[in-house]
Amino acid sequence: MTIPDLVIDRLPQYARVLASLDDQGRDVVSSQEFAELLGRRGDGADRPWSAAQVRKDLSYFGRFGKQGRGYNVRKLMDELRSILGLNRQWRMAVVGIGRLGHAILGYQGFTPQGFRIVEGFDSSPHLIGQHVDGLTIRNTADLEATLKETRVDIGIVAVPAETAQSVIDALVRCGVRAILNYAPISARVPKSVQIRHVDPVLALQSMTYYLKASATLD
Amino acid sequence: MTIPDLVIDRLPQYARVLASLDDQGRDVVSSQEFAELLGRRGDGADRPWSAAQVRKDLSYFGRFGKQGRGYNVRKLMDELRSILGLNRQWRMAVVGIGRLGHAILGYQGFTPQGFRIVEGFDSSPHLIGQHVDGLTIRNTADLEATLKETRVDIGIVAVPAETAQSVIDALVRCGVRAILNYAPISARVPKSVQIRHVDPVLALQSMTYYLKASATLD
Repeated sequence: MTIPDLVIDRLPQYARVLASLDDQGRDVVSSQEFAELLGRRGDGADRPWSAAQVRKDLSYFGRFGKQGRGYNVRKLMDELRSILGLNRQWRMAVVGIGRLGHAILGYQGFTPQGFRIVEGFDSSPHLIGQHVDGLTIRNTADLEATLKETRVDIGIVAVPAETAQSVIDALVRCGVRAILNYAPISARVPKSVQIRHVDPVLALQSMTYYLKASATLD
Repeated sequence: MTIPDLVIDRLPQYARVLASLDDQGRDVVSSQEFAELLGRRGDGADRPWSAAQVRKDLSYFGRFGKQGRGYNVRKLMDELRSILGLNRQWRMAVVGIGRLGHAILGYQGFTPQGFRIVEGFDSSPHLIGQHVDGLTIRNTADLEATLKETRVDIGIVAVPAETAQSVIDALVRCGVRAILNYAPISARVPKSVQIRHVDPVLALQSMTYYLKASATLD
């Protein structure tokens, strides 16, 4: 069975809500409460989640919902984590150890979720060889040589816009098949490579339309 | 005319491509080249952009495309920037000045786009009163009093997950109508408030499904 990409995209949020319910010792959740716990979608449409959406998305997994009883929290969580590949360790390299890269290296949220930063690269002579959060920063020029020796699943790009595409190209040449890009560029990667953008400016710009509209009504 | 929310959500990316073309002195762009410059969508579906999508989205603005000639870069950019409210200054407050908050305060990408950070808050006694990037960090406890005196359009939430919802609630009480949330929570806000999430873990988790799938095929 093929699960649509847009459903896959929502599953991490479902898994997070389920983990939080599991932490609270909850066994069962209804689609209605599930939707409420998901809160606002926070995307362009930014609608509240609906119980119907939750039921429809989870129907791809067939056997979880029981009419009138709701979903088994632990079972559904384990299944989603397995589908998403969250029950294993993923190895990541960060390229660009400026202020943003430092914040990424220090972020406490990756390791508990199975995402481990194993390499950090920068091109600044002041940074190369420095120890940051248990890593020795390597020269970005040595990226390809290093990744021949060390398996890295995911590349995190935290360099300035001007050099981001060339870093992405180098990661792709090294066989990295997933890229989390913080640089404000429209990056190009082959079809076989996944890319996601973390771009606060685009997120801000998608809100000002609504601020402007309501300001006009004031 | 009402522009669908999902189209609004894509306009910032269109405006960015147009600004880059304008910088290069380009006058006209075809929908085909436009789609190529947009690269990969980087969302769940992560398809390449299509010329048809570009034409359809821009058709809401009616009078730009000329059959066989393409879009006037400067005119379309100005119109999109005006629609999105990007031709003015927006005032932002950052709550939480840890490593992430520091990276946000130091980010060079906000100001050129009209987003100005005017206040920074933290609850740590070590930080309160410190000067960081030209701001004097205030006590988060004084958030509501401060925002009564100072207009802030957008709140940036960079506190840990545990305190994020209460910070969001305080910002909403102060009349802030747009929130950029970096905390890994399913935040709740009233309908009248826009919220966008910046969450690298969710982005990573939406890629591992594909890594896992292709790893299995190896």
